[in-house]
Amino acid sequence: MKCKRCGGSAVVEVRRHNAAFCKDCFPVVFRNQVRRAIDEYDMLTPGDRILVAVSGGKDSLALWDVLLEEGYRADGLYLGLGIGAYSDRSHERTMTFAADRGATLRTVDLAERYGFDIPLAGRKGARSSCAVCGLSKRYIFNKEAHDGGYDVVATGHNLDDEAATLLGNTLRWNVDYIARQSPVLPETPGFARKVKPLHRLSELETAAYAFLRGIDYVVEECPLVAGNTQLRYKEAMNAIEARSPGTKAQFFLGYLDRGMPIFRTAEERVTLVACGNCGEPTTAMFCAFCRARAQVLGERLVPTPAPDSPREIARELADEVLPEELYGVPAEA
Amino acid sequence: MKCKRCGGSAVVEVRRHNAAFCKDCFPVVFRNQVRRAIDEYDMLTPGDRILVAVSGGKDSLALWDVLLEEGYRADGLYLGLGIGAYSDRSHERTMTFAADRGATLRTVDLAERYGFDIPLAGRKGARSSCAVCGLSKRYIFNKEAHDGGYDVVATGHNLDDEAATLLGNTLRWNVDYIARQSPVLPETPGFARKVKPLHRLSELETAAYAFLRGIDYVVEECPLVAGNTQLRYKEAMNAIEARSPGTKAQFFLGYLDRGMPIFRTAEERVTLVACGNCGEPTTAMFCAFCRARAQVLGERLVPTPAPDSPREIARELADEVLPEELYGVPAEA
Repeated sequence: MKCKRCGGSAVVEVRRHNAAFCKDCFPVVFRNQVRRAIDEYDMLTPGDRILVAVSGGKDSLALWDVLLEEGYRADGLYLGLGIGAYSDRSHERTMTFAADRGATLRTVDLAERYGFDIPLAGRKGARSSCAVCGLSKRYIFNKEAHDGGYDVVATGHNLDDEAATLLGNTLRWNVDYIARQSPVLPETPGFARKVKPLHRLSELETAAYAFLRGIDYVVEECPLVAGNTQLRYKEAMNAIEARSPGTKAQFFLGYLDRGMPIFRTAEERVTLVACGNCGEPTTAMFCAFCRARAQVLGERLVPTPAPDSPREIARELADEVLPEELYGVPAEA
Repeated sequence: MKCKRCGGSAVVEVRRHNAAFCKDCFPVVFRNQVRRAIDEYDMLTPGDRILVAVSGGKDSLALWDVLLEEGYRADGLYLGLGIGAYSDRSHERTMTFAADRGATLRTVDLAERYGFDIPLAGRKGARSSCAVCGLSKRYIFNKEAHDGGYDVVATGHNLDDEAATLLGNTLRWNVDYIARQSPVLPETPGFARKVKPLHRLSELETAAYAFLRGIDYVVEECPLVAGNTQLRYKEAMNAIEARSPGTKAQFFLGYLDRGMPIFRTAEERVTLVACGNCGEPTTAMFCAFCRARAQVLGERLVPTPAPDSPREIARELADEVLPEELYGVPAEA
């Protein structure tokens, strides 16, 4: 195979584009796709202070790498989940990455700061460990962005992630969650802007980019993820993709183009109020994070005096895990 | 396993309902589901003259059986597709079924009436054989219903069919096709009412019903169907269903409940006119059936004098194959 860009010897094949690229051209093509995503959705401006949620995996480190290469002011945020050696290795890789580039890495340790870790949540909580992990990430990324004065949180969700999430939400016709699965969520009171600049790029492409850029990332999957429904949706999408290359991109990008506008018009606005415990926005008396934490730790949540008036704020994106985990069951709202 | 209804020895397990039934109760449960579908969507009234599209397979014969058992005036329509021994056996089974019950079977032979069969269309046509087969069925079922004075065409589409079609349309975000995937399409000028009374029942359930009722149906798949995209979507749904029983039902019935209303509001109306060759409704100068037929036979279509005025008629459901086959590419419209 020859590189589509320079005619040299290709090392990465992108079947859905019926193209292949050499080791020098692929990173260029990859960055072009990221730039295209950023431009198309007005994700970032040059002056933005960006907080990149980094896990030590290929996607988030590839994203951080591209943003730094493109000259953005991008700091990393690593969240210590307490998942044994897996978390240790992940932290190590993010620290090495940051040190090599002279980039700033912030770290929050879940156990240290909030008194529980993900394995404990999996054992003690009413939710799956993946669910608590997802809602903790959303909560903490948002809070750290706010506390640190960042303009935007960038996450490494790739096309496979987005297609699998969309498939899961569509199989359930969770119409509100479908409506909000956008690559960019503008800032609203209580919520930082959220962007997903890798949404046009597949898992394979981010892995190839990380490899070609010499990024030392954690290859292993999280040990708690086995049986995760998201993985099943990825498998289903992969089975279709193998026979019909381009299906994933058609599904997710087609949704952005033709599906989302329809769901957006049908979307209902909800009223968010300040969590009675931590003050972060929620639809319930207490936010999903505080409820999950209290449940894991066996604590009782007691409302603090209500703020002057409930805040009307726009809805938050639900990503990574099923959004009911974020908002809780409707009866609680 | 015990029968959920009578406590006897169960022979059919319905995993998504976490239930099992004995050989006597299952047909009762099956018919209850059909009755529920008919009631919920006002599909049929007792006086209706029903034309059941029968292929000789389990679904359509199970449907015809239920409708006759329930006392409806249901005739069968068999369409001879000319697919060698497969078509011969299929015709034989439908004739035996009809003879055993003293029911009326109408037969249309595609080659005899229209000068081509499906294998020829697959070899000569621009469309796949599955595509021409699907559009021929829709065309002829509708025309025969009209010519024979029937009130409604009933087809044996089951839950697996509907979920796979919906998945295919959703993966492509064919929003107009999604909007029209209803278990009932009311009569409109030029189109008979169309109903799918088995849409709540899985492929496994219709097979079990046909077996328990002693219906001798064609078990083999159509020999031309290999590689059909619809089959791939069924496989993907089956893989998810195996791990999460109930996903198919949740997907299709959830769509009817929460998805369809959203897509319906976004749906655009199109203007249909009489086909310049056969007079049946179409969005183009000639209907998709006449265009496919002319292409297969190497004929040129010449417009007959236009009718007094174009007829404004509501859209037709697209089922079984991708609806672009029915309407043709937009450029032709």
